[in-house]
Amino acid sequence: MHRSLSIKSGRGSGSSADKGPSKHRFTMASLRGIQQPDLSKKLFKLIKTENHAIGAVETAGRERATIAAQLSEWGEATNDDAVSEISDKLGVLMAEIAEQEDIYAQNLEDSRGVLKQIRNTESSVQPSRDHKAKISDEIQKLKYKEPQSTKIVQLEQELVRAEAQSLVAEAQLTNITRQKLKEAYDLHFAATIERAEKQLILAKQARRLINVLDDTPIVPGDVHPTFDGNDAVRQILNDAEDELRSWQPTAEPIHSQSGVLNSGMPGTTTTQGQGLEIQQSPQQYQIAGAEESNVAHTVSDPAASEVGTSEVAPHAVSDEQSNASAAIAAA
Amino acid sequence: MHRSLSIKSGRGSGSSADKGPSKHRFTMASLRGIQQPDLSKKLFKLIKTENHAIGAVETAGRERATIAAQLSEWGEATNDDAVSEISDKLGVLMAEIAEQEDIYAQNLEDSRGVLKQIRNTESSVQPSRDHKAKISDEIQKLKYKEPQSTKIVQLEQELVRAEAQSLVAEAQLTNITRQKLKEAYDLHFAATIERAEKQLILAKQARRLINVLDDTPIVPGDVHPTFDGNDAVRQILNDAEDELRSWQPTAEPIHSQSGVLNSGMPGTTTTQGQGLEIQQSPQQYQIAGAEESNVAHTVSDPAASEVGTSEVAPHAVSDEQSNASAAIAAA
Repeated sequence: MHRSLSIKSGRGSGSSADKGPSKHRFTMASLRGIQQPDLSKKLFKLIKTENHAIGAVETAGRERATIAAQLSEWGEATNDDAVSEISDKLGVLMAEIAEQEDIYAQNLEDSRGVLKQIRNTESSVQPSRDHKAKISDEIQKLKYKEPQSTKIVQLEQELVRAEAQSLVAEAQLTNITRQKLKEAYDLHFAATIERAEKQLILAKQARRLINVLDDTPIVPGDVHPTFDGNDAVRQILNDAEDELRSWQPTAEPIHSQSGVLNSGMPGTTTTQGQGLEIQQSPQQYQIAGAEESNVAHTVSDPAASEVGTSEVAPHAVSDEQSNASAAIAAA
Repeated sequence: MHRSLSIKSGRGSGSSADKGPSKHRFTMASLRGIQQPDLSKKLFKLIKTENHAIGAVETAGRERATIAAQLSEWGEATNDDAVSEISDKLGVLMAEIAEQEDIYAQNLEDSRGVLKQIRNTESSVQPSRDHKAKISDEIQKLKYKEPQSTKIVQLEQELVRAEAQSLVAEAQLTNITRQKLKEAYDLHFAATIERAEKQLILAKQARRLINVLDDTPIVPGDVHPTFDGNDAVRQILNDAEDELRSWQPTAEPIHSQSGVLNSGMPGTTTTQGQGLEIQQSPQQYQIAGAEESNVAHTVSDPAASEVGTSEVAPHAVSDEQSNASAAIAAA
C-alpha cells in the first residue's frame, strides 16, 4: 500500500482526477444526474460509477468464458493428446472462474441497490430543507413589508411544522445512511471475499493441472509418449468441484444496532428489510397534532424517487404522524 | 460447478456461441486475423480475446478507484464525523483493491505475451508445411507430364530437405507449445491467486472497518455521540498494510522438464528464456549437409512474425544446421 492513509488529503492535488473517470457516452442517466437535488448528487454519481464498474466485471467474465472455450478448441486442433486434454480442462476451470466473476457482478449489484436507498432518502430530505427555508424567507419578507399582517402568525405555525418535519427527515437520513452504508459494504466486501476464495480454489487446482503436462522436449522425428494423465486430470476436476461445493462464507459478520430502538419486537435482529427503525417505536416520542400532509409530501416526493423508493416510502408515510410529533416535541 | 467436465462436449450445441464474443468494432487487428496462417488462427483469436478481457479488468480497476474517491467525498459531505471517517478509510482499502486489479491486468498481459510465442511458432511452421506439399505436388505433376525429366531427381532432393525442415519445425512447435503453454498459465493462475489473496486481506480488513461504524438509530432532534473510533480505524489500516507487505506467493510451483535435453549446461533449470532446447544439444543428432537457406527461411519468416519473434527466431536461425541434419537422419 503505497498510497496515503486518506483519500481526502490528496484530493486537492487533483491526483484522483488524473486517472479520471473513464469517458462515457451521454445517456438519459446523465440528464437525470443534473436533476438530482444537491444532497444526493455525490451518491448519485458513485452509484453510476458502480454501474460502470459492474459492467466491466461482467465483460471481464464474459471474455474469460470465451477464452476458456477458445483454449479448449485450440488444444484440440493441436492434435497433441496431452495438450488437448490439459487445455480442455484448464478451459473448464477457467469457465468456472468466469462464472465466479459473473456472480461477483450480481452481488455488487445487490450492494449498489442498498446504496440507492441512501440516495433516495437524501433526495427525499432535500424538499424538507427547501420548504423550511422558504417559509423562513416569507416570514422575514412579510415582517419587513407588513409587520401587522395576521398571515405572519399563520406562517410561524407553518414554520414550526416545517421544522418538525425537517428534524424527522434529518434523523431518518442519518439513521438510514449509517444503517444502509454498513449493509451495502457488508454485501460488497462479502462479494469480494467470495470471488477471491472461490477463484483461489480454482486457480490452485489449475496449477496442479498444468503440472500434469510433460514438457520434456523431443528431437525432430520423435513423438511424445502417449498421454497417461487422464486419471490425474479427472481427480483434479473432482477435487475442484468438491472444494467449491463445500465452500462456506467465513467472513467476519457485520454487526448492526439498527434494531435497538424496537428491541423485543419480532424480526428486529437483522439489518435488511427493517426500513426506518426509529419509526417503529412511536410510543417513545408520540405527541398529537402533526400535519400529516406536509410530512407525507416530503418523504414520498415522487420526483425524487427512483429504484428503492418502494422500500423506504411506505414506512415513511405510514409513520409520519408519530415522527412529526416527536419532532415538534424536540423543537 | 454446474457445467460439464469438458468444454468440447458441449460445443456442437452452440452453447458457447450463445454468450458469444461481445461485439467489438473493426480494427486493424481484425484484418490481420484474416491474414493469419490456418495453424495459428485459433490461438490468434484467443490472444485477441485475452486482450479484451485484460482491458475489461483494467476498466473495472479504474472505475473502482474512482468509486473509492467518490465514497470518500460523499462521506465528507454528510457532515457526520463517523460516516466521513469510515467512508474515507473504506475508500483507501477500495483504492488498494483497485490497484490489485491493475496489477492483475499487467500479469495477465505477461501471460498473454508468452502465448504469443506459441502463436509465432505456429505461424512460422505453416510455410514449412506448405513448402513440402508444394514440392510433392510438383514431383507428381512432372512424373505424369515428363517422366524422364532430370528435374525430378533435383526436386526429390529438395523434398528430402523440405521434409527435414518440416520435421524440425514440427518438433520445435510441439516443444514450444508444451513449454510455453505451461509457462503462460503458470503466470496466469499465479496472477489469479495473487489478486485473490491480496483482495482477501483488504476485504477482510474492510469488514472490520465497517463494524467500527455504530448504526444505533437516533430520535429526531437527537445527535449521534462523538465518533471515538479513530484509533480502531488507524489500527485496521496498519494491519492491512502489514499483511499486504508480508504477503508471499504460496502457490504450488510449476515444474518444467523443458531443459532436460541439455542438462548439465549452464542456465538450463528454469523455464523462461531457454528458447528451443532441442537446438542446444546438436551433438545428439548432428549429421552434415543440410541446406541452411531453406530452414532459415522457414523459421524466421518475417511475414508471420510479430511480438515475441525476437525471442524465438535467433535460436532457430543460429541452430538450423544441426536441426535440419537431425531431421535428414530421421527421414
